[in-house]
Amino acid sequence: MPMPGRYLASMAIRLDGRLYLFDAGEGTQLAWKTCRIGLRGLSVVAVTHLHADHCLGIPGLMMLKAQLDDPEPLTVMGPPGIREFILENHRILDFHLNYPLEFIEWSADAPDWKAYEDDRLRIFWEPLEHTRFCLGYRVEETERPGRFHPDAADALGIPEGPLRGRLQRGESVTLPSGTVVAPRQVAGPPRRGRHLAYVVDTRPTPAIHRLCQGADLAFIEGMFLPEHAEQARAKGHLTVVEAVRAARKAGTRQAVLIHISPRYGEDDLDRLERAAREHFQDVVVGRDLQVYSVPLPD
Amino acid sequence: MPMPGRYLASMAIRLDGRLYLFDAGEGTQLAWKTCRIGLRGLSVVAVTHLHADHCLGIPGLMMLKAQLDDPEPLTVMGPPGIREFILENHRILDFHLNYPLEFIEWSADAPDWKAYEDDRLRIFWEPLEHTRFCLGYRVEETERPGRFHPDAADALGIPEGPLRGRLQRGESVTLPSGTVVAPRQVAGPPRRGRHLAYVVDTRPTPAIHRLCQGADLAFIEGMFLPEHAEQARAKGHLTVVEAVRAARKAGTRQAVLIHISPRYGEDDLDRLERAAREHFQDVVVGRDLQVYSVPLPD
Repeated sequence: MPMPGRYLASMAIRLDGRLYLFDAGEGTQLAWKTCRIGLRGLSVVAVTHLHADHCLGIPGLMMLKAQLDDPEPLTVMGPPGIREFILENHRILDFHLNYPLEFIEWSADAPDWKAYEDDRLRIFWEPLEHTRFCLGYRVEETERPGRFHPDAADALGIPEGPLRGRLQRGESVTLPSGTVVAPRQVAGPPRRGRHLAYVVDTRPTPAIHRLCQGADLAFIEGMFLPEHAEQARAKGHLTVVEAVRAARKAGTRQAVLIHISPRYGEDDLDRLERAAREHFQDVVVGRDLQVYSVPLPD
Repeated sequence: MPMPGRYLASMAIRLDGRLYLFDAGEGTQLAWKTCRIGLRGLSVVAVTHLHADHCLGIPGLMMLKAQLDDPEPLTVMGPPGIREFILENHRILDFHLNYPLEFIEWSADAPDWKAYEDDRLRIFWEPLEHTRFCLGYRVEETERPGRFHPDAADALGIPEGPLRGRLQRGESVTLPSGTVVAPRQVAGPPRRGRHLAYVVDTRPTPAIHRLCQGADLAFIEGMFLPEHAEQARAKGHLTVVEAVRAARKAGTRQAVLIHISPRYGEDDLDRLERAAREHFQDVVVGRDLQVYSVPLPD
């Protein structure tokens, strides 16, 4: 439940001016206003599951976006039923929308686990194990062209200037001599982008491994201290130890524990962090409005 | 829209441990937690209209109440459609409820304007004039027994003690002599309770007069400064001057302006108050989490 000073779990990815939001419970728009993100770039809202604390804030964000002039379309993605949730609320509350809405619902029949793709990133999803059907997410930034080798370009007689720029961006070019040069002749293999994971509301399951594998940054629920493991089991959640063990095994570089039980006050958060650190060094407890910069992998 | 430091319009009446809530937009449960009201006594949620900023916070409050052991039933009242809004969200989000829900929807066919009654108060409603069907509310505390006249009791030979107590509470009694004494023989006429009004999202309309007539305290929207009257008209709202004029004409004792446009920052609120004061002395601009004690009328 949302509390003064501790909002519901929600994560926004900002990439080249575009915003991708994962979960939005009641009050998420207040958090956005507090950190002044702005809604102009919001193009995707991805929902893990249809519990109120993960989706009841979406209509408010939709209305906020509708206050912009000529906003971009919005894609809402999530489990089966997310479309109905949005459309029923829109029908009953009859709020103003001035942009197209698109929906992507998870389906067992989909050919693979890729849910969404644009020119900046791809989003994958995988069912988790919760009291209700719940999806975990993995986000992979689009690959960057390989590292450019000026020596190789010199050897091929490619003049300094725009032709090299195009090769650097991954395009083939035709030299004045008529020779066609492909990017792989002057650059290394494409370099991977940044990989993130967003995993909440689940018991330990192999899906966490797949979602977090090699991730630069993984947001994982740390709902309970290990001493409350019984409740974690009963309510379909992770303890902080279960969370970081899964992250470590998956080769996650850094983990952020979110979705902490409201039973733990501010003082308890340090205990949570310490309990997690015993099993995985690169973990912190996420705090409201915190910003993480993920460096490009080399 | 909700903003950090300024929640959406919502009013709770606390009377003898029971709570009656009027409107609940996104974030209302955060305001409740901040002022630590507690949900145990919440028995009625009354909604003015089906715009999101007036009802999207109800599911969260319902879930919060469901964390109590054995809570009282909850009555949700409002315009046609409020039942569907609650039940559709409950069906789709499938949240836990451990108490009965009752609904009262406004109907043009109702015999009078009384919407609800319990042993503590009566609630009346009346359609206002907004861009969407919207109800204004009037709350009347149940009458108290008349003022007791000990001299009259002496004259009738009523002994000190429980018999007088029962007469004071408005019951008839039989004296040891066999004589039956009615309360009106030893007490004045029943004294009225406190009267409140809650009127938001409307253009000036005679309904405001009826709702606010002689009210001890009226919460009225003061959406716009008079210089923005054109927008008030276009969007179906009141300026602060329209609001207090209606309150003054209705013989309201004190008015609180709420539902202020987010265009006005903290500094503007004093200007709003001054503009209103020119037309009605007993008016203040309502601030978040403020508590008003309404004395019993004599």
